[in-house]
Amino acid sequence: MALFGRRKKRQEEAEEPVVEVQKLPDPPAPTINGMRSMADHRDYLLSLVEPLPPFGQNLLEAQGLALCEDIVSTIELPGFDNSSMDGYAVRCADVAEAAEDNPIDLPVAGEIAAGDGDIPQLAVGTAVKIMTGAPIPDGADAVIPYEGTNRGTDRVRIMVSATPGLHIRRRGEDIAAGTLLMNDGDQLGPRNIGLLAGVGIDKVLARPRPRVVVLSTGSELVQPGSPLTGGGQVYDSNSYLLAAAAKAAGALVYRVGLVSDDREEIKQTISDQMVRADLIVSSGGVSQGDYDLVKSVMPELGLTDFCQVAMQPGKPQGFGLIGEDDEERVPMIMVPGNPVSAFVSFEAFVRPVIRKLMGVEPYVRPTERAFTTHVIRSVKNKTQLARALVTTDPGGRRTVELVGGHGSHLLGDLSKANALILLGPDVETVTAGQPIAYWPLNDG
Amino acid sequence: MALFGRRKKRQEEAEEPVVEVQKLPDPPAPTINGMRSMADHRDYLLSLVEPLPPFGQNLLEAQGLALCEDIVSTIELPGFDNSSMDGYAVRCADVAEAAEDNPIDLPVAGEIAAGDGDIPQLAVGTAVKIMTGAPIPDGADAVIPYEGTNRGTDRVRIMVSATPGLHIRRRGEDIAAGTLLMNDGDQLGPRNIGLLAGVGIDKVLARPRPRVVVLSTGSELVQPGSPLTGGGQVYDSNSYLLAAAAKAAGALVYRVGLVSDDREEIKQTISDQMVRADLIVSSGGVSQGDYDLVKSVMPELGLTDFCQVAMQPGKPQGFGLIGEDDEERVPMIMVPGNPVSAFVSFEAFVRPVIRKLMGVEPYVRPTERAFTTHVIRSVKNKTQLARALVTTDPGGRRTVELVGGHGSHLLGDLSKANALILLGPDVETVTAGQPIAYWPLNDG
Repeated sequence: MALFGRRKKRQEEAEEPVVEVQKLPDPPAPTINGMRSMADHRDYLLSLVEPLPPFGQNLLEAQGLALCEDIVSTIELPGFDNSSMDGYAVRCADVAEAAEDNPIDLPVAGEIAAGDGDIPQLAVGTAVKIMTGAPIPDGADAVIPYEGTNRGTDRVRIMVSATPGLHIRRRGEDIAAGTLLMNDGDQLGPRNIGLLAGVGIDKVLARPRPRVVVLSTGSELVQPGSPLTGGGQVYDSNSYLLAAAAKAAGALVYRVGLVSDDREEIKQTISDQMVRADLIVSSGGVSQGDYDLVKSVMPELGLTDFCQVAMQPGKPQGFGLIGEDDEERVPMIMVPGNPVSAFVSFEAFVRPVIRKLMGVEPYVRPTERAFTTHVIRSVKNKTQLARALVTTDPGGRRTVELVGGHGSHLLGDLSKANALILLGPDVETVTAGQPIAYWPLNDG
Repeated sequence: MALFGRRKKRQEEAEEPVVEVQKLPDPPAPTINGMRSMADHRDYLLSLVEPLPPFGQNLLEAQGLALCEDIVSTIELPGFDNSSMDGYAVRCADVAEAAEDNPIDLPVAGEIAAGDGDIPQLAVGTAVKIMTGAPIPDGADAVIPYEGTNRGTDRVRIMVSATPGLHIRRRGEDIAAGTLLMNDGDQLGPRNIGLLAGVGIDKVLARPRPRVVVLSTGSELVQPGSPLTGGGQVYDSNSYLLAAAAKAAGALVYRVGLVSDDREEIKQTISDQMVRADLIVSSGGVSQGDYDLVKSVMPELGLTDFCQVAMQPGKPQGFGLIGEDDEERVPMIMVPGNPVSAFVSFEAFVRPVIRKLMGVEPYVRPTERAFTTHVIRSVKNKTQLARALVTTDPGGRRTVELVGGHGSHLLGDLSKANALILLGPDVETVTAGQPIAYWPLNDG
């Protein structure tokens, strides 16, 4: 079953429609106090999306993207023996006795610049002027740098001896032909790009950035920059927060902004956006409130799964494969509306899905470890994700302390944190000085 | 003296031309064996560029950029007392005796959704249904979540008592009006963006991404993707490497590609590119070779400084403020042509200049420390920058080992490294187990 949407519909399927009951594969059973574990939910979402199909991209445009091929060098680097200095190519035997007090004069048979081809052989008893990067002529086995000579033009006075190979970069000493340079799945950084260009590669097969559509739902929301005109109104921070986080994770983001709690508006907006989305991320409307319309409406637009995840914050979660046609469904992650819940849900579920769409492993951010500076209390039967500040002491030891309170709405504290600590469902108290796991929040 | 190029020419200067000898401020004197120290050279370049002028930018477009204003919240967050749960707003006094075995029935006087304004006062002895995020009515001092009730519509049966403030988020408890949210110079990450949106801000005064033009010089260079047609030809890797590194550092990059060793072609290309450049970065042509034309040509186009820096690799360095008009000169950094020298020069000089143009401190990447696993030999009187691999052991201790050889042309090794170690001009040997400084190479 094709669960991801950009593939072309195959002709035979159009001709032979198969009637079947469409539903998502069975979700994992609740294992923690009637709730799904955070890891189970994440793995379920990851099982329902596939990496985007790759295509040939210009090398520089593929920066940050994942390769979808092994890359083997077809050439040697350097491609020919060449000089690593400006100076004179010589035979060592001709300058074996050369010294400051015993200079040896040689006729200069010519000059070789970087880029020159068709280099004549070096005759015995002669020197040839050579520039950095220029090919070593046959017969020469060393380069005497300018500093060891009088820089002569017709004849050169050489005042130092040389050992074979001196200041010569050997053909293939950096990269041999056939060397595996990069692997399928590797992400292209600046130095990889330099390396591939250096062996003549200007295009690579890479997966594109996922196109992520972000929207917020809720009739209480007001677009930032507009005045709050009534009681109960709140600025929409989530669509900004999630759009920026998705961009930092590597996505190409379309922020649609806010949608009110109106069934038709929600349906129309989602339907309109599907055409340009590899993933839709919404916030709000997934709890058990009477106005939580996302949860109520989305089953009409596709295959959905709403559940409670044993985590705090971020308990109510929704997922869907949206669209009528099995071949063109778009994954949608529906996170709760509190800004901190939305952000934590992004880290726990959205970011891994974006990375899987990009084909960049590991999908889940690896945890790091730091030592607590004080007692931390957690909630049994839930994975607690708390905003924290990790600092490294001069000895390289990392310590962690909580930032602010546990309230899921504290945007101010969220922006001060540089880490999310993870306390598993079995943890109730962590005493001071214990190591705990955290996700560094590198915003890039 | 205005050293940076995007300011408008002032009228009075156009009317009263002042004849003066144009030259760069005196460069720092050589202090190490006739060479300039790496730090002196970097500080000199930094003294010759200024941060780009800021302008008002949409919040999401300013992601990764540096603010040029302090930002103070003009509103409180939350803006009103509101419910953190779906449930019923009550007076604690009315439910003081409520328990599983002593339920208390209250008439439901209405319903408040998120976004509702003009909320009537809660009458004594009544409850009002309330959704998460909805304003708490005057008179109510707690919220009973659905789970503690029978979810009644006309009347509700309440089976738990409450303490004042239960499940109420207090007005201003996250952000008080007047709170300083961000400082001039702060870089905008996703959570900052969420915070600013949350207090209603959709535009910020921020410095733009510098427009960096990158080109390689050398007649031996061939565009990747084209065949090598003659002996002595080499693929241009530097313009790719430097373009990608500049982009990763935050710049908007125009890769011009390669320019041959032709005086007029170099002059014409640089002149053409100035109009769209906040910084020009070239590689090649700055050594003492007879074909090092950048060094020979650029003084005709502006104020230049060519010098030897006490570092390995990267000794020959060039800088210029290019252009005839004092008010419109564009800084140009000219790095050596060997790929590893070019990359090291990028890290040492170009990246700090890009960050100063962006207004992002620290301009210079802070060093981190790791312990050597083996003896490392360095070159006296030069700062050595060597490709290295830093790994963190399970105990959190970071160790470092060299990658590959010291040759400045080893592109293959460069792409395998994740750090550049820095060994100062006084260091000749580092014994195993010693801490040394390195720059992590986070490619982003």
